Amino acid sequence: MTHATAMLDTYPADLGNVDKQALADCIDACFDCAQTCTACLSESMVAELTKCIRTNLDCADICDTTGRLLSRHTGYDANLTAATLQACLAACHACGDECERHAGMHEHCRVCAEACRRCEQACQRLAAALG
Amino acid sequence: MTHATAMLDTYPADLGNVDKQALADCIDACFDCAQTCTACLSESMVAELTKCIRTNLDCADICDTTGRLLSRHTGYDANLTAATLQACLAACHACGDECERHAGMHEHCRVCAEACRRCEQACQRLAAALG
Amino acid sequence: MTHATAMLDTYPADLGNVDKQALADCIDACFDCAQTCTACLSESMVAELTKCIRTNLDCADICDTTGRLLSRHTGYDANLTAATLQACLAACHACGDECERHAGMHEHCRVCAEACRRCEQACQRLAAALG
Amino acid sequence: MTHATAMLDTYPADLGNVDKQALADCIDACFDCAQTCTACLSESMVAELTKCIRTNLDCADICDTTGRLLSRHTGYDANLTAATLQACLAACHACGDECERHAGMHEHCRVCAEACRRCEQACQRLAAALG
Repeated sequence: MTHATAMLDTYPADLGNVDKQALADCIDACFDCAQTCTACLSESMVAELTKCIRTNLDCADICDTTGRLLSRHTGYDANLTAATLQACLAACHACGDECERHAGMHEHCRVCAEACRRCEQACQRLAAALG
Repeated sequence: MTHATAMLDTYPADLGNVDKQALADCIDACFDCAQTCTACLSESMVAELTKCIRTNLDCADICDTTGRLLSRHTGYDANLTAATLQACLAACHACGDECERHAGMHEHCRVCAEACRRCEQACQRLAAALG
Repeated sequence: MTHATAMLDTYPADLGNVDKQALADCIDACFDCAQTCTACLSESMVAELTKCIRTNLDCADICDTTGRLLSRHTGYDANLTAATLQACLAACHACGDECERHAGMHEHCRVCAEACRRCEQACQRLAAALG
Repeated sequence: MTHATAMLDTYPADLGNVDKQALADCIDACFDCAQTCTACLSESMVAELTKCIRTNLDCADICDTTGRLLSRHTGYDANLTAATLQACLAACHACGDECERHAGMHEHCRVCAEACRRCEQACQRLAAALG
């Protein structure tokens, strides 16, 4: 059982009719992706990878913020959650594409590209579930 | 001269045809709003203001992330920047509305509502300038 | 295999003679604790738990920053790492104590107290391993 | 009047006998330094400056967290605040030294080194004021 599931299972307030599994998966994917993108930086510290560094930093910050926002789900604002998921999707898509370009050369970047793809999909599933 | 202006003025890379003033204003507004929303929390720590607390925390995190992303402007991704500005707009709008409801009772919330309105407008201006 | 272990195993730079297991455990514990403390907020949103809210927010921010710093381990600064681990230790200790006081009443707080204790211990082990 | 001063002046709870000016100065210095270090990254994106990048990222995260913790001053934990100020001091000192080494070559780094020095001093003054 993941941390997000443990916290949602002991959640005192009414979560409404939200798809709890999609929510827990998305929270976990966001924090995993934030962690992986932060660590990917050290791989990328060479001049030709400057775009990769910037993309990783943007993605880490946006995933971290999205994970935090989703973790504070009580009485959520549908409009704000939808906009945040769109930003997170865009960040993961850009970072996944960028890291994938270096995946053959850097094992680190391959691991990071996979985390970005998983997070992008989890955001899409949650956005669809929230309607 | 603000910090954002000082950093943009000494920026080594080409910023393209971006409206530097709109960019600097938006970076400053984002960090100001993040700081103010973080501090507003202590005001709101009473049971009837739980929605205000959550909205402040969401807004602080999103503004902080938006300020960071805009500060790393080099070779920016138009799609990602637009999506992030939309999320920041939504967060500032929601938090400004919520804090304004308590502005008559809590001087703290009035200051915070104003920071949210300024940040919302700065995001709108930058989004328009970036086309 | 955790994300931190996956990233450290594919790390391109020399990690020196650091205890990789203690480092990976501490990174994982920091991010888990940050996530759990962020989620714990919604539990605590009642007037009598204001100290618990503040302690959770402080702990989430410090654990997140510590996890990020440790994830960028290359050429680390022993003095800075030691000071950051001490701050993280203090935050987890304070938050663990505070959440434990509510653990009988709030299942959420019990889960959070456990995450704080694990992170405190992981920080102590890494601090000892780094000498 | 800065944002930190505006928020402290409208603070509803008792701040005890804390030196409000030292507290407001330190909050402002932390957020300024976080912003400046984040922006400094783009300057440093060349292979020979990898240590500078890492130091800037560490400093930005620690200053941001310290500014947040100090902004939530109510009922503060003396032990945690002291440990956090020590970590922030260490980060600003390291980053100031590193950026200063490039200050002759990069105007950006000179501005950043100055922000780090101001923040280091503000942390020292607040630590002394808090005893």
